[in-house]
Amino acid sequence: MSPSYAPGLAYFKRPRYPVSVEPGPRFAGVAAALVGGAGDVLSEWLDRYVRSPLRLPGAVDRDALGAQCEPLVAALAVALAADDVRPGAPSLREVEKGLSFLGAHLSASGCSGFDAAALVCALRDTLLDRLGHNDPSDGERDALFHLFDWFSAVALDAFAQGCRAEVTERFHEQLVDRTPVVLVAPDVPAAFPIGDARVNGLRGVFARLALTIARVGARVVIVDASGLSSQDDPEILAALSEYASHRKIAGRVALVACGLSDRGVSAWRRVTGAAGMAFEVRQRFWEALGAALERSDFAYSRRRGP
Amino acid sequence: MSPSYAPGLAYFKRPRYPVSVEPGPRFAGVAAALVGGAGDVLSEWLDRYVRSPLRLPGAVDRDALGAQCEPLVAALAVALAADDVRPGAPSLREVEKGLSFLGAHLSASGCSGFDAAALVCALRDTLLDRLGHNDPSDGERDALFHLFDWFSAVALDAFAQGCRAEVTERFHEQLVDRTPVVLVAPDVPAAFPIGDARVNGLRGVFARLALTIARVGARVVIVDASGLSSQDDPEILAALSEYASHRKIAGRVALVACGLSDRGVSAWRRVTGAAGMAFEVRQRFWEALGAALERSDFAYSRRRGP
Repeated sequence: MSPSYAPGLAYFKRPRYPVSVEPGPRFAGVAAALVGGAGDVLSEWLDRYVRSPLRLPGAVDRDALGAQCEPLVAALAVALAADDVRPGAPSLREVEKGLSFLGAHLSASGCSGFDAAALVCALRDTLLDRLGHNDPSDGERDALFHLFDWFSAVALDAFAQGCRAEVTERFHEQLVDRTPVVLVAPDVPAAFPIGDARVNGLRGVFARLALTIARVGARVVIVDASGLSSQDDPEILAALSEYASHRKIAGRVALVACGLSDRGVSAWRRVTGAAGMAFEVRQRFWEALGAALERSDFAYSRRRGP
Repeated sequence: MSPSYAPGLAYFKRPRYPVSVEPGPRFAGVAAALVGGAGDVLSEWLDRYVRSPLRLPGAVDRDALGAQCEPLVAALAVALAADDVRPGAPSLREVEKGLSFLGAHLSASGCSGFDAAALVCALRDTLLDRLGHNDPSDGERDALFHLFDWFSAVALDAFAQGCRAEVTERFHEQLVDRTPVVLVAPDVPAAFPIGDARVNGLRGVFARLALTIARVGARVVIVDASGLSSQDDPEILAALSEYASHRKIAGRVALVACGLSDRGVSAWRRVTGAAGMAFEVRQRFWEALGAALERSDFAYSRRRGP
């Protein structure tokens, strides 16, 4: 097939395997089978999945998986009875949502891409099986095959996005829990938030800072902002504003910040000023520590020794 | 189809669409087409991909993608000529590796799961097209269709794993670059490593610590280990040992650690002892700071004021 064919028309050369299901064949046979026996379809789908050579070996919780799959079978029964069944058509919206949901569910459940592919293929083969006694020349079988290319792409894109989201979430939790909030003097907490607003969970860090303030009765804290990628990002400033406006903190606990860019200084000064919080800026951490100790009851005096 | 059928035999009920390609049909027609015209296959594969309604709209760098796809076409030409072509068979190993590589490449290139699915379907349809004039009853076409269920699963699992790896890598870089290494006094660096050994890149953190030591002429550093999930993990200890054995650090720069568990204390004491490094442990950060300042030229003395 030469690239000079007009796209979209090229496929009609081989009507038995059109890549796209346009211009919209109908799925009367499989729709009838679904309406008449959705429960059987679901049950056979799960059977085929359990037996599938594509998935990784391992036990399958049929009841749990069935609960996730059932809405998709119901949505398919409605969608495939429509006149205009093609990728992106309104009639398929619920099915596409269901497939995305299922792909995301599988990734969140620790399944592999093999499992996700096996589940979609098992549904396809279950439905193709329902067309067994029809005349293959009616095109429904082939159209269904290619519609499942689309369904498979929808489910597997959601699966892959789910994998990204799962790793992101894990790191997010790790950053919120592990971002250093330490006592640099017995009554001076310091926080070192890290990363960008999307992942750093600054709210979680400020919450731990607030707990530490309450525990040691701090009158001043240090925030080293040098690890933040975007110090004046709206999400960062919103978290700072919430912290600064806390009724037990505003007007009571001063903030000494270091590692701020010029833009960061203006933004943080504005936000803390609006909350009535005493705010000082130093360039380096040790300068911030010196400034904070002025407001604390503590001093580090070096023993004079040899 | 009832679940009481023996698995593996059930599919022979509908030989036109076997789910598995076992017991090993042969692919003589498509192998001949590949041997005779691998270049044409590659070119048509890319054409079909560019036109595919499955992929997300956008420009395709045909040359770059073609360079990634070419080895797979070559591997397929060899593999499909073999007698025993089935998922996991030695004959398919190169093809499976090629598909994994391609899936990983697509995820690293910022492609979507739709693009990955479109690329595999485009190859399948290109090869099916080569069988156009054969008798469909010979089974090669259907066997090829189902072999591509497997190929698709291999490629998309690699794609999803690539998505995980890409996010992990991004966070890893962020942690290495952003993990706080600050001067808590003008001549006392402190590091606050975070997370687990797999992701925290402690080597990168120690490298930054070593640079800071050289820059300020530090004789003592503080490491707050409370953010490490597994303080005596072999990878953590290997990074600590490399740091402690550095010729400009061992015997010259003391380490004051805090936030270590009992097991962490023993392991870190052993590693630093082997390198001849002075090692002190304190429970809390401010105690570690006090101990470090004893070894520094600096003191924080609070101004006596109102």
